[in-house]
Amino acid sequence: MLKIFMSQHDSIRAVEWKDNHLVLLDQRKLPHNEQFVQLYSAEDTAEAIRNMVVRGAPAIGIAAAYAVVMAARKSYKQYPSDWRNRLEAEIETLRNARPTAVNLMWALKRMCAEVENVQGDPEEPLLALAQRLHQEDIDANYRMGELGSALIEPSHSVLTHCNTGSLATGGYGTALGVIRSAYSSGKIEHVYADETRPWWQGSRLTAWELAKDKIPAHLLCDGAAAHLMKQGKVSWVIVGSDRIAANGDVANKIGTYSLAVNARYHGVKLMVVAPTSTIDLGTASGDDIPIEERPQEEVLNVATQRIAAHHTQAWNPAFDVTPASLVDALVTEKGVVEHPSAEKIAALMTS
Amino acid sequence: MLKIFMSQHDSIRAVEWKDNHLVLLDQRKLPHNEQFVQLYSAEDTAEAIRNMVVRGAPAIGIAAAYAVVMAARKSYKQYPSDWRNRLEAEIETLRNARPTAVNLMWALKRMCAEVENVQGDPEEPLLALAQRLHQEDIDANYRMGELGSALIEPSHSVLTHCNTGSLATGGYGTALGVIRSAYSSGKIEHVYADETRPWWQGSRLTAWELAKDKIPAHLLCDGAAAHLMKQGKVSWVIVGSDRIAANGDVANKIGTYSLAVNARYHGVKLMVVAPTSTIDLGTASGDDIPIEERPQEEVLNVATQRIAAHHTQAWNPAFDVTPASLVDALVTEKGVVEHPSAEKIAALMTS
Repeated sequence: MLKIFMSQHDSIRAVEWKDNHLVLLDQRKLPHNEQFVQLYSAEDTAEAIRNMVVRGAPAIGIAAAYAVVMAARKSYKQYPSDWRNRLEAEIETLRNARPTAVNLMWALKRMCAEVENVQGDPEEPLLALAQRLHQEDIDANYRMGELGSALIEPSHSVLTHCNTGSLATGGYGTALGVIRSAYSSGKIEHVYADETRPWWQGSRLTAWELAKDKIPAHLLCDGAAAHLMKQGKVSWVIVGSDRIAANGDVANKIGTYSLAVNARYHGVKLMVVAPTSTIDLGTASGDDIPIEERPQEEVLNVATQRIAAHHTQAWNPAFDVTPASLVDALVTEKGVVEHPSAEKIAALMTS
Repeated sequence: MLKIFMSQHDSIRAVEWKDNHLVLLDQRKLPHNEQFVQLYSAEDTAEAIRNMVVRGAPAIGIAAAYAVVMAARKSYKQYPSDWRNRLEAEIETLRNARPTAVNLMWALKRMCAEVENVQGDPEEPLLALAQRLHQEDIDANYRMGELGSALIEPSHSVLTHCNTGSLATGGYGTALGVIRSAYSSGKIEHVYADETRPWWQGSRLTAWELAKDKIPAHLLCDGAAAHLMKQGKVSWVIVGSDRIAANGDVANKIGTYSLAVNARYHGVKLMVVAPTSTIDLGTASGDDIPIEERPQEEVLNVATQRIAAHHTQAWNPAFDVTPASLVDALVTEKGVVEHPSAEKIAALMTS
């Protein structure tokens, strides 16, 4: 049974297993409609990941873990003796749903190891593992919240980008978890949140979470962040990550790298908050991380409304890579790595 | 009579004097509706400037010059002997329409000097001056186009921000004028244009101008510019300005400063293109430039559609300041100033 621990300033859960299926809060409909999607198959879950019903690297991993439970259940029912082999195609579909976030691959790997081990009906043991991964993620977020918050000198405000909260994880959040902890403990009084074009994760999701959990915040346009830093209004930029290479390079939502360069220029510190499941020792450096390019319509239109001039093309990379040299602190559930390097990350992963 | 010279890749004019009144292409309605607003008074013109029917520092100045013609005509008709004094209030309204762009103050100063000089009915001489200012602006843009283009080594692409084209000026454009010239002469093949939140000057206006004048372009989200520079895709960032202080600090559309920091970090050069009417020797440095903060609804909504979560606040500075130290070249109609400083700018202004 999943123990979902909620403290003050932590009231939201977007991924849940209910009776026999997966329930996702549809993040495309937020903030105006709080609508849940009921999923009964791995194919539909892959589709939901691709279409960003669920997004955020850790949340994608957890959703995929539950999807494996449903795929295995179906396969075992249809092909009791050959269910493992018949599972392959659906796991491959899940693996390809989004290319950049490595937590998806990590969760599938852990689930597949269990697939190899189980005897008889796989549903119960696989569900137990998926729920353990989910619970570990929430626990990791609480731990990172404490560790990250401890790094912050009392200050008025911090700046965050994209959404890294309960909506992006099993619950509580990575960067937004640190912000929740820092606000709860009186370390900060206020949050600046980039609106995060083109998908508006800041305006739609982070602002919604912060309003729901009563943490004071201002949105700003992504281009205004440098002006904010110049005015000395923020002490830290705090972000999540979709994949961290073995050398500490950080892939995260497009716009993060611009913030990192500006933070260094202004003497503002950069904190990356991510569970170790985001660290991919198989990727040597940021150059090797595949950067998803998404449809240009995300830039040209807002919902169904055309914004851009006709006959216009857009370039829409969904992520960028921040070199480790611009990261002041990497906060994981296993501990904090200051000024990350290949050596320090290797040591963390074997600790 | 205003001679509006149009070359290849230059087909748009947004500010025009027609018979007895001012005609503005309504920039709030672009790109989907090409709608013109007919203005017969200075108050209505001030309102049009405030509401951004017309925007762009040089275009605002020209519209204000024509507004003075209409104000003087009315005043002279009502108070033939006291028309100059009666004019004051309307000129004050124009002056206060937008605080950051100095071309507005500059145009009003030139018109007011003529108001002092004219004998008898002021309409004809004031109109002649307004049209001269308009023509001078277009001529300056063509000259800056040549000067700026000459600085560019042949390369694939450049990056621009906001709209600095025919829509923002008397015609042709400042930064976009340089881009028009560079494209016409084969120096560049392609343009990247920031969408420029929150007012979408890039998506709505620059993309519209470039499509109309058949210059190939891609839009990108403002936060993606650093990722673009890292990939070596652009050789120059080319922008306009709303006010340049005596020491060379540059106020321009929010987001410019972030680009400037990133350009320096990546070894990409920054070109600021502005007529000398944008240089304000009465403002010592960028710290003294008033930065307009616009309504938060511009960030929270897109047109009438609410994007952000409810109970969310936004911080919406319309401009930022880039220090002279980050500017590689300032291009004016009087010549190019490399690495601008107070001394170099003083010399330019007395040349």
